[in-house]
Amino acid sequence: MNEPLGPNKSAEFLEPPETSASLRPDPRGILKDGAPNEPALRALFRKSILSVRDFSREQIISLCRLAAYLESVEITAYHPLDGKLIITAFFEASTRTRISFESATLRLDGKIISIPEGGQTGVKKGEGLADIGEMFNAYGDLVIMRHTETDALERIQRGLRLPIINAGNGTGEHPTQALADWYALMKWCPGLALDEPIAEPLNIGLLGTPGSMRTVKSFLLMALAFKQHINSVTIVSEMADPLGKPVEEIVREEGIAVKITNDMGKHLSGLDVIYMNSIVCIGDQYTAMDASYKLDAASPLKEGAVILHPLARLEELDKSLDATPHNLYFAQAHGAVFVRQALLLSVLGRLYQLPGDIQLTH
Amino acid sequence: MNEPLGPNKSAEFLEPPETSASLRPDPRGILKDGAPNEPALRALFRKSILSVRDFSREQIISLCRLAAYLESVEITAYHPLDGKLIITAFFEASTRTRISFESATLRLDGKIISIPEGGQTGVKKGEGLADIGEMFNAYGDLVIMRHTETDALERIQRGLRLPIINAGNGTGEHPTQALADWYALMKWCPGLALDEPIAEPLNIGLLGTPGSMRTVKSFLLMALAFKQHINSVTIVSEMADPLGKPVEEIVREEGIAVKITNDMGKHLSGLDVIYMNSIVCIGDQYTAMDASYKLDAASPLKEGAVILHPLARLEELDKSLDATPHNLYFAQAHGAVFVRQALLLSVLGRLYQLPGDIQLTH
Amino acid sequence: MNEPLGPNKSAEFLEPPETSASLRPDPRGILKDGAPNEPALRALFRKSILSVRDFSREQIISLCRLAAYLESVEITAYHPLDGKLIITAFFEASTRTRISFESATLRLDGKIISIPEGGQTGVKKGEGLADIGEMFNAYGDLVIMRHTETDALERIQRGLRLPIINAGNGTGEHPTQALADWYALMKWCPGLALDEPIAEPLNIGLLGTPGSMRTVKSFLLMALAFKQHINSVTIVSEMADPLGKPVEEIVREEGIAVKITNDMGKHLSGLDVIYMNSIVCIGDQYTAMDASYKLDAASPLKEGAVILHPLARLEELDKSLDATPHNLYFAQAHGAVFVRQALLLSVLGRLYQLPGDIQLTH
Repeated sequence: MNEPLGPNKSAEFLEPPETSASLRPDPRGILKDGAPNEPALRALFRKSILSVRDFSREQIISLCRLAAYLESVEITAYHPLDGKLIITAFFEASTRTRISFESATLRLDGKIISIPEGGQTGVKKGEGLADIGEMFNAYGDLVIMRHTETDALERIQRGLRLPIINAGNGTGEHPTQALADWYALMKWCPGLALDEPIAEPLNIGLLGTPGSMRTVKSFLLMALAFKQHINSVTIVSEMADPLGKPVEEIVREEGIAVKITNDMGKHLSGLDVIYMNSIVCIGDQYTAMDASYKLDAASPLKEGAVILHPLARLEELDKSLDATPHNLYFAQAHGAVFVRQALLLSVLGRLYQLPGDIQLTH
Repeated sequence: MNEPLGPNKSAEFLEPPETSASLRPDPRGILKDGAPNEPALRALFRKSILSVRDFSREQIISLCRLAAYLESVEITAYHPLDGKLIITAFFEASTRTRISFESATLRLDGKIISIPEGGQTGVKKGEGLADIGEMFNAYGDLVIMRHTETDALERIQRGLRLPIINAGNGTGEHPTQALADWYALMKWCPGLALDEPIAEPLNIGLLGTPGSMRTVKSFLLMALAFKQHINSVTIVSEMADPLGKPVEEIVREEGIAVKITNDMGKHLSGLDVIYMNSIVCIGDQYTAMDASYKLDAASPLKEGAVILHPLARLEELDKSLDATPHNLYFAQAHGAVFVRQALLLSVLGRLYQLPGDIQLTH
Repeated sequence: MNEPLGPNKSAEFLEPPETSASLRPDPRGILKDGAPNEPALRALFRKSILSVRDFSREQIISLCRLAAYLESVEITAYHPLDGKLIITAFFEASTRTRISFESATLRLDGKIISIPEGGQTGVKKGEGLADIGEMFNAYGDLVIMRHTETDALERIQRGLRLPIINAGNGTGEHPTQALADWYALMKWCPGLALDEPIAEPLNIGLLGTPGSMRTVKSFLLMALAFKQHINSVTIVSEMADPLGKPVEEIVREEGIAVKITNDMGKHLSGLDVIYMNSIVCIGDQYTAMDASYKLDAASPLKEGAVILHPLARLEELDKSLDATPHNLYFAQAHGAVFVRQALLLSVLGRLYQLPGDIQLTH
């Protein structure tokens, strides 16, 4: 349906108002020095994405670059996912992540079957995940799943022949959240997409426990793909061993310097990137951050430092920061739709449906 | 997608069966003396609609006239909302209103992200409405919101850059319900769309408390746009002050004669329009109507009088009335889809996508 | 939208992997000896389907043959339900059946308004089903309803002018499940579609109580359309009268030999088709099957026998059977989408929208 849409075509919405534009780095910055690599993206065709480790560095950068195109060019009229049906099966509720995927899909003209409370389906009746996977084979082209249990993806894959994207599994991973995080960072610092180390490698602070919090773990694992640009990673946690054995080994192997502290204040002024969280996992329990982990416009942040936060926020991230250049969290939330679109187009093999304005390298 | 749809094209459904046709005034009656005014509708482009007061008289009439076209002409094949994504965020459950908006959207080929129980999303976790608004910016083109709290729309607008349509806010308003009400009345009495007063100005009876019931309040506020056609408004309520100060002042200023009574029986036979309700708000509580407020086919209604009811009904509106000419409530429910379509097309700037059969004035 | 979709077009998914292909009979087998009969299908235009008895034998076979085409040919690009809006109103929760219908619709480019928990809408407020039907008239083109009460369909039809498809009503019927069951059997034994009796007429075993379990009842009633191919039907139940009077009379009239037993083991080795269930209705209660009704790969099944199961399964159907040729239940679940598509295309009058590859007889 490429008929002209008339003068009121939705393209207007692509230009954000002045006030927020200042907070949102221009996505085209990361297209100046390179285009998405087509073979890297095509290698994702029909591939399931369970972990950040399923992506190569080339794929991460190419997905972010394709996302930058999708954020800059109006492609709705090309209907690139026409005829594709995506099942969003959320066995752990998350309106935000679910509708981010659904918006990503619908704007490309894909269709959605939404199961917002998967836990209330057959599973409650005792049905196994493998059987649910078998059922899904007849119903759609791709499954996006969130589950409270870490091994749930492997279990459903016993019956499932469709590709599946992990939207959060227990204490496991949340790879598309990490894509959204690093896409925001790349827009802020386009040099991250290049091989040559940036002039001043980053000091990154991470609130939380990568060993048991999947968003933090996936962020850290994806950081390994950018290690030449990283000077240090500081984990802020009350726990003695917030990394956990398996993550620690991977990080050690890759040779990133990781410091652990429970005193955020002491390190704050040296950090270029601060990854905040509204909850932390202490032992087996999630608790809200206490006062010593709160940031506001008066906090002693380094000039030019940016804050990430996988929203929703509570009081740990004060609204006084929203109008400052430290706010990268709105860009992070906004960009999540576009990295997910880039991934869906790749896994579903619809890169050929994109308009000619989007240049891929071969 | 203007390809021919074959002989079984959905156009057949446009002709309702005999029995109900008699209950449904022909929408084309209000097109005989005028067409929708294009500049008035285009002035709604990207505008948020929080209150009936956001519409001019010209806009109300033009929306109803456009609705009359939409009810008469098959436009599905024109896909006028192609590529537009609408978020229905219902922080107070209402299947009826939600699916009315969703049907309106889908039939124009818009897409829907449906959040039927918004209260269970981030808000429960303490997330602010402004942050939810910020999130919505990335997800869609327009938000339709219902909320239990009257100030919720203003709060979400602090973060939201998309237009928003109020689908009911606490004790506030419900402007599209009022559009549906007056569209039904206009179909029944096309003279309401003209400037010259109708031959026998209307006596309107209103069950409920406009001060605290948003549907009744919005109906009354929209009545002000038709004041030259109104002889009197009688509010039937057990409360001493069912209007409340702010509404009373607006009504007084506009010079509509408002009577207040608790005895519906005494006034019934003089009323041309009776706006019924299944609940009334007494003090802070909603209670079902008691027996003295019930209507059935044996009630002493004026000849030619019509009944409105924002359904769902309980026992206050007996089914014996369904097959009588007093039944305007089915037409009112039916027409709600079309006034909502008229509004969506205007706010989303897609009037140009309509077929040539629909004539607008310039 | 018939534009070329590029080399990654979804057609690839039509070829299932080796391992499962062996479990899934080729649907094209039932097209060798005949095509769907167009007049039979067109007679379903705008017809409501409440019972298996609403179909003629010719219609059942033609729906299955059309389903065989839909399972074999990629027709997504033809958008045959473009512009059609289907309401799935589930007053009794069933994710599986609901998303089977929704997937069937969306893949044909129809739109869905989904009411997954109809019991929480107006009905809770006391609203009658007839009024809900009246409301639906304005919202869509067809209603698919499931309800806990057997007479719910008749009640909603008092207000509804749209066609309605029964997706399970109390102890009534579930006609599209029976279509899925017999479509699977027809793929396994294409001779069932012909008039001449098959060489070795079938011995069918049925676990459950057709009198009070709607899936079993609908399966049995549809069996009557295939009686020339059936040698015997054995009902396995703990109840003295699992058929119930009305079903018994119909079955007796049609002259099918029905045996009743509570000992599955005694008959198992003689059965060609075993229709399993995870629950049985004993008196007024559903209970899980006990150990004597369990099947696994070691059960003494006849060579070539097949098992049906309207999933979800519990322990009565062991996973050791999944990889055996006895497994017809995966094909049964898979095919449900296509028989539902065949029915939707017929009831909504969109057979003309199908590609020329699909041959209908006149």
